[in-house]
Amino acid sequence: MRNIGMVLSYDGTAYCGFQAQPELDTVQGRIERAIYMLTNEQTSIMASGRTDAGVHAYGQVFNFTTASMIPVDRWCLALNSRLPDDIVIREAWEAPQSFHARYSAKRKTYRYSICAERQPDVFRRNYEFHYHRPLDMTAMQEAVRYFVGEHDFTSFVSPKSTKTSNVRTLYTARLDIEPSETGEEGRGRLHLELTGNGFLYNMVRIIAGTLLRVGERKLIPADIPRILEAKSRKAAGPTAVPHGLTLWHVDYNGEEQFHTDNNASK
Amino acid sequence: MRNIGMVLSYDGTAYCGFQAQPELDTVQGRIERAIYMLTNEQTSIMASGRTDAGVHAYGQVFNFTTASMIPVDRWCLALNSRLPDDIVIREAWEAPQSFHARYSAKRKTYRYSICAERQPDVFRRNYEFHYHRPLDMTAMQEAVRYFVGEHDFTSFVSPKSTKTSNVRTLYTARLDIEPSETGEEGRGRLHLELTGNGFLYNMVRIIAGTLLRVGERKLIPADIPRILEAKSRKAAGPTAVPHGLTLWHVDYNGEEQFHTDNNASK
Repeated sequence: MRNIGMVLSYDGTAYCGFQAQPELDTVQGRIERAIYMLTNEQTSIMASGRTDAGVHAYGQVFNFTTASMIPVDRWCLALNSRLPDDIVIREAWEAPQSFHARYSAKRKTYRYSICAERQPDVFRRNYEFHYHRPLDMTAMQEAVRYFVGEHDFTSFVSPKSTKTSNVRTLYTARLDIEPSETGEEGRGRLHLELTGNGFLYNMVRIIAGTLLRVGERKLIPADIPRILEAKSRKAAGPTAVPHGLTLWHVDYNGEEQFHTDNNASK
Repeated sequence: MRNIGMVLSYDGTAYCGFQAQPELDTVQGRIERAIYMLTNEQTSIMASGRTDAGVHAYGQVFNFTTASMIPVDRWCLALNSRLPDDIVIREAWEAPQSFHARYSAKRKTYRYSICAERQPDVFRRNYEFHYHRPLDMTAMQEAVRYFVGEHDFTSFVSPKSTKTSNVRTLYTARLDIEPSETGEEGRGRLHLELTGNGFLYNMVRIIAGTLLRVGERKLIPADIPRILEAKSRKAAGPTAVPHGLTLWHVDYNGEEQFHTDNNASK
């Protein structure tokens, strides 16, 4: 059997999350159906991780085994023509037998986007959280630096999580500002970018919700270490809405470098 | 009666065009219904022009008269809370009685976006035309210059048009290139931006379709003057799909300057 790896993008708006569930329309369900249409094989794909309803992916990765002889450069077009237009396979490659999209992953990157303009942007309405008041973006940039490094993220995990350890390492935690065309103070767009060795359930969305509290000046940047130390979900801010979140990239090489250079060129 | 002017954005994907039509879901119909919910007044809004099904607007303008005493700074929020999230009123102002969104318009700007990457971008799939092969973008930039100035656009108008004169002036005709992240030749994104004193039915889409023929090297840039002179729809390229088109801006001041500086900063 061949082991095929794939990178895909999806707009999560219309789906009940990534993971296949009986009777529900999911990204995994759509992909497995497209593979079945193409190969006549019933398969279970293995993704780098699941995403919740409304959450998007730019660079989700999955792998699956197949007896099909279809050449690797034909898979993208063959599957895309059998998928709805909100799911796009971007790359396919012949992976070694040892490759597993979840267990082989070294680092993941998530982006959370916030639009702090007076009116929402109709063209990005499903991909960013619209916050209608101005934000103290400089304080938010200062606050985000405290997340870099190894921490116990118990304050930043949903109580529904079943993980035994909440210790994770963030290599990069940055908040890029796209200034407003209006030039108005506190307006514009924010992109939170977090790269780490693993993410807990709702972790990025709770970090985003807590940074918004800093932007509202209900918290100060120096509150972040205190919230981390509290190891209590109640110490942190709310869970930001799912549609601002995108699984950006999964890295299988994994150089470990620590970054918090907001607005640095990538 | 007050005369209120408004700027709005909409994602045209879900609508049967701008103009109200019985039994059909249109942008105008939605706005008039929202005004009715707010003021109890049956009104007909006057827009700068209609847009076809699937076409978007970033800065469409309309005006309407009302007896309502709602202060002008309340209108945006009041209407947006009564509109679906793919229609957003961005600005409202108290207009002089003489202001008419269509007859007072001096210049309009349209943008047509093309994505020439191997795979479509799921997040922009409804806002740009995905052309899957590489394009000769330099030739396209050279070709677009020939459209600047006063021309008889008979070759670039739908036979359905009912206008008596097809002479229009384009002040700006430019094609901006967003290079591909892959660095591959002929890949990336293109944004055609046209500013003129008026646009004929399907004119921007036929210009975009003709530029694509140049990008495919089925036409050369110097063919454009010949096609204009032919004054025949058959001489030009096909009508590009509606969803790449956005009504970008309507200008009511109207300084006349000619531009064709591709990729210049705006």
